Amino acid sequence: MHPRVLSGMRPTGPLHLGHLVGALDNWRTLQQEYDCFFMVADYHALMSEYEHPERIRVWSYETVIDWLAAGVDPKRSVVFRQSDVSEHAELFAILSIVTPLGWVERVPTYKEQLREIQGRDLATYGFLGYPILQAADILLYRAAAVPVGEDQLPHLELTREIVRRVHFLTKAELFPEPKSLLTQAPKLLGTDGRKMSKSYGNTIALSESPDSIRALVQKMFTDPLRIKRTDFGHPETCNVCNYWKLFLPNQYEKIWEECRSASRGCVQNKQELAEHVIQLTEPFREARKKFATESGEYSQIEKLLQEGAQRARDVACATLADVKRAFGLKPAHGKTG
Amino acid sequence: MHPRVLSGMRPTGPLHLGHLVGALDNWRTLQQEYDCFFMVADYHALMSEYEHPERIRVWSYETVIDWLAAGVDPKRSVVFRQSDVSEHAELFAILSIVTPLGWVERVPTYKEQLREIQGRDLATYGFLGYPILQAADILLYRAAAVPVGEDQLPHLELTREIVRRVHFLTKAELFPEPKSLLTQAPKLLGTDGRKMSKSYGNTIALSESPDSIRALVQKMFTDPLRIKRTDFGHPETCNVCNYWKLFLPNQYEKIWEECRSASRGCVQNKQELAEHVIQLTEPFREARKKFATESGEYSQIEKLLQEGAQRARDVACATLADVKRAFGLKPAHGKTG
Repeated sequence: MHPRVLSGMRPTGPLHLGHLVGALDNWRTLQQEYDCFFMVADYHALMSEYEHPERIRVWSYETVIDWLAAGVDPKRSVVFRQSDVSEHAELFAILSIVTPLGWVERVPTYKEQLREIQGRDLATYGFLGYPILQAADILLYRAAAVPVGEDQLPHLELTREIVRRVHFLTKAELFPEPKSLLTQAPKLLGTDGRKMSKSYGNTIALSESPDSIRALVQKMFTDPLRIKRTDFGHPETCNVCNYWKLFLPNQYEKIWEECRSASRGCVQNKQELAEHVIQLTEPFREARKKFATESGEYSQIEKLLQEGAQRARDVACATLADVKRAFGLKPAHGKTG
Repeated sequence: MHPRVLSGMRPTGPLHLGHLVGALDNWRTLQQEYDCFFMVADYHALMSEYEHPERIRVWSYETVIDWLAAGVDPKRSVVFRQSDVSEHAELFAILSIVTPLGWVERVPTYKEQLREIQGRDLATYGFLGYPILQAADILLYRAAAVPVGEDQLPHLELTREIVRRVHFLTKAELFPEPKSLLTQAPKLLGTDGRKMSKSYGNTIALSESPDSIRALVQKMFTDPLRIKRTDFGHPETCNVCNYWKLFLPNQYEKIWEECRSASRGCVQNKQELAEHVIQLTEPFREARKKFATESGEYSQIEKLLQEGAQRARDVACATLADVKRAFGLKPAHGKTG
């Protein structure tokens, strides 16, 4: 048995190239070394989408389709939807009861997100507690490690503090303290050169059609100092050239050199990048043909999620039974109690 | 089908005479007019007992034994333990996500309890959310009414506000707005004349032995102005006389008159009250003989709770499925979805 890893994504919209470079490529390789639990975090999605929750269900399916196309193997890894496993809510309730209010009020991302996220009212009781729900997600599977970006480190530290507090209160050793697997993923910027974000409308979705990809790449910002075709380029300041660097880390130098020497123009550069992205995202369009029907049904994905939920529950149920016993509650259904 | 009522008790210690007069007598009669769901609120108990949770499980059983002795009929009413029905935690999580933080921060009992309850650290995330868990408890069964004391009215108002908010967000009609059944239960004071409370050590438990009852009643405070046996008494200021008034609302006047005319002394008065309380609590001691074994096993009560949990789940599961569907989450296991 390999050590366990838990990771998840919030189904709040179509996945885009940023998810591929930032997380999915990493997930594919994590599968070699870890028993991976990949979670569609629909409760977490609801925290920002509760005012318009209509599409969470469809986004959950579409997210899984993209995972499969990216090489997530549901035979090897456990692919499941958070709300299918009631133990997440139960452990959340128990951890909520033992977590000091000040701990969640002081999580640095909390006030930042309240301030920064526009057009959504995040000042809810649930949103304040979302690092506790994250802790429950991780601890339910006794994950040894969690892939995180730098900005998520305080959340993982809170999870570890909760572990220590639970152990102190129950005098039992219920969970390992999860370690961080810091993902050094390079940042893919949006087509307009700003941070890639759905809300800026500067993403290229993994499910994008070839024509749409061509149109989006066509509009990308390039080197602002290169006005004429014959001007020498500065690839390090050009968003198109930076995409090349991320997609072809071993071959991009040739392209950059052609840009510097003006033997490659921006129009050609964009056309070739568009074709490259079209090729890169071909598996995602193929997967969509295979799994999503015209009528919007996703029966194969639903079946896959139900199988994953069963495997997730097998682990989650044993953990929750131990936690309930330690806190003087009767383990449910006497399954393991 | 009668309208549904939900009520619960926190298993934080032995039930006492105050519970009998304040709630259990009321529950017995509610069973005639309503479909009652009586919940052992062990999650709520954990909110104050999480630092010493060892006895919650046993208290849960002991609480149910007292309910049965008081005339709660588990054939007619649904008697269950909150943590056996995972839907409570799931609905709590969903309602948490839509409840503005300010609503729970402003519940009047919150700051009061933080201030007043000594020896326990209640400044947790979970305790702040306990009116939301209460709302989940009530709404899961679509209860038409809830028996509450005056001090609990703001909690029920919060439940109604949450109902209106959920309906606004989902454009669905998921729950009735629960009404309050204001219980006009007279207050039984503790043996020392202060508010009856386990933490003051001034209670008479329903499971108390006859000798212990005699000793406790013996120490009760009486009329402070009646020094000698021959002094005339003032029954309205005498705690023992007030017990008579509550226990024998139609016959107490004779006793009070004997006190006033000094034909009845305090010693006799206490002796007779002790015997009356012993008689009153006889069913509770009997039930304990029947249901609790020497070894501390409670297999019959556990079986009864499991049957109750199944009946509770049948209702809770259907409600939760509707709520999940309305919020774009997939109903679990496709049971009703």
